[in-house]
Amino acid sequence: MNLAMTLFKQQLEHYQIRNNQQLETWLDSLQMQDNSLIRAMRYGLLLGGKRARPFLVYATGAVFGIDNEALDTPASAIECIHAYSLIHDDLPAMDDDELRRGQATCHIEFDEATAILAGDALQTLAFSILAEGALAPQAESYRIKMVQSLASASGASGMCLGQSLDLEAENRQVSLQELKVIHRNKTGALIKSAIQLGALAAGEAGIEQLPRLNQFAEKIGLAFQVQDDILDITSDTQTLGKPQGSDIALNKSTYPSLLGLEGAQEKAALLLKEALLELESIPYNTDLLEQFARYVIERKN
Amino acid sequence: MNLAMTLFKQQLEHYQIRNNQQLETWLDSLQMQDNSLIRAMRYGLLLGGKRARPFLVYATGAVFGIDNEALDTPASAIECIHAYSLIHDDLPAMDDDELRRGQATCHIEFDEATAILAGDALQTLAFSILAEGALAPQAESYRIKMVQSLASASGASGMCLGQSLDLEAENRQVSLQELKVIHRNKTGALIKSAIQLGALAAGEAGIEQLPRLNQFAEKIGLAFQVQDDILDITSDTQTLGKPQGSDIALNKSTYPSLLGLEGAQEKAALLLKEALLELESIPYNTDLLEQFARYVIERKN
Repeated sequence: MNLAMTLFKQQLEHYQIRNNQQLETWLDSLQMQDNSLIRAMRYGLLLGGKRARPFLVYATGAVFGIDNEALDTPASAIECIHAYSLIHDDLPAMDDDELRRGQATCHIEFDEATAILAGDALQTLAFSILAEGALAPQAESYRIKMVQSLASASGASGMCLGQSLDLEAENRQVSLQELKVIHRNKTGALIKSAIQLGALAAGEAGIEQLPRLNQFAEKIGLAFQVQDDILDITSDTQTLGKPQGSDIALNKSTYPSLLGLEGAQEKAALLLKEALLELESIPYNTDLLEQFARYVIERKN
Repeated sequence: MNLAMTLFKQQLEHYQIRNNQQLETWLDSLQMQDNSLIRAMRYGLLLGGKRARPFLVYATGAVFGIDNEALDTPASAIECIHAYSLIHDDLPAMDDDELRRGQATCHIEFDEATAILAGDALQTLAFSILAEGALAPQAESYRIKMVQSLASASGASGMCLGQSLDLEAENRQVSLQELKVIHRNKTGALIKSAIQLGALAAGEAGIEQLPRLNQFAEKIGLAFQVQDDILDITSDTQTLGKPQGSDIALNKSTYPSLLGLEGAQEKAALLLKEALLELESIPYNTDLLEQFARYVIERKN
């Protein structure tokens, strides 16, 4: 691993720890801690994970010099949405995964009913956090825009639609254009929202840069998925924390299956180049976002 | 049926039609109408139902003379939450119901994966509606309070917690106190939120009356559940639109099983009396809310 990557991973870990602490505090504030619902929410939320979406909230806020304290709220909210989606995606009726990040999935550790409810309640918690959590004074008037961004990215015009399109695409050949639509919704929308939330948390200054940030987000969102597809082939189960080759097992169309492994790698590299070009037009220090973009296609899990 | 009840049912139907039209408009605004996710959302949302929660939003707003147009947003949002909860509650891993309102439940009509996703996306749609829908000018600054109320009522401190407690209580005897906690969360929280949303949509005037309205809401929320338990024994499958006697079949503790049928009926009557007493202290015209309270314990399904 090169030095830049090592330093970046330390940054990522720093925000990961911060985000985990924040999420624990939100969980601690719930009543009936020994109820299986709350325990399953805690399990699903703190099972591990890179915290890429919270990182993007912090990294985007940092562009405008916003303190981490004023970014904790949207960072926590978006991770709750991501965690809920993983719990539901793993269910027997969906991807039927027993392993996530090297550990039992939520419905294996608890049961299906509890996992469904834990996902439901984590989605709700995301909106409670956005409604109640601390923000910078200049972001207060954009709180409802944050709700709008996160809801729009998660539901029937975003993540849920993407998951539905993905399920419909199993066991049949899809075109490159269809694959792009699936991923733009399934993973891209939430990554874009993370960046929007970071910008909204900065108030006026952030909103001014939204067009460029949205472009950047679309590029790295897609690159993230292309790299995920690549890793499903080139990595191993232990590094991934989930079964390697599961896309092939499910007969899923992926970027490598449509473009070849080399073609997919070229696609990821091109998306990185385009993403970095967008950052160049932003008249602030975008170092953290740049490092994240590079990490997206250099990561091994 | 007496005249007052007949007239009230016409009112209820009037708001039911209005709410259905509103919900259709929101559904129509989604892209990819032929996707199974969107079709399942439409199916689950427009399957029928009394629209009791939207009615409570309109009836509470009416106390303060607020136009229906300024109440459509919270009324639509809360029905999306209710519809999502029914879809998920009916799943095989939960109550495993194949019939709802006399028709196939969502996972029977579609499949389990689609039903899970449709529930997820309906929850999200509720928050999109609250963030984007029209409100009266005096309610604009309370929009985020609406998000807070609805999220707090639906998640791990409300409806989801209640469903979890209810699942844990199956096949064992629970105390009257436990039963109250289950229902306060499972159904009471959302009924309370409906009334809070109606009050928030009225701005300052509504917020002033919140303490009394909250008390009223708690009484009728509990009465609603007691009457549901009574109807499970005294009604028939066709009138209910779901299997009569299903509580007994699931070996669930209910008010009649703990208090006897007559004791449960007395409890419902007492709750009605207390609820009406709360309304008397509100210096506005609360006729619609009063009629609803009477309807709660006089209804047959």
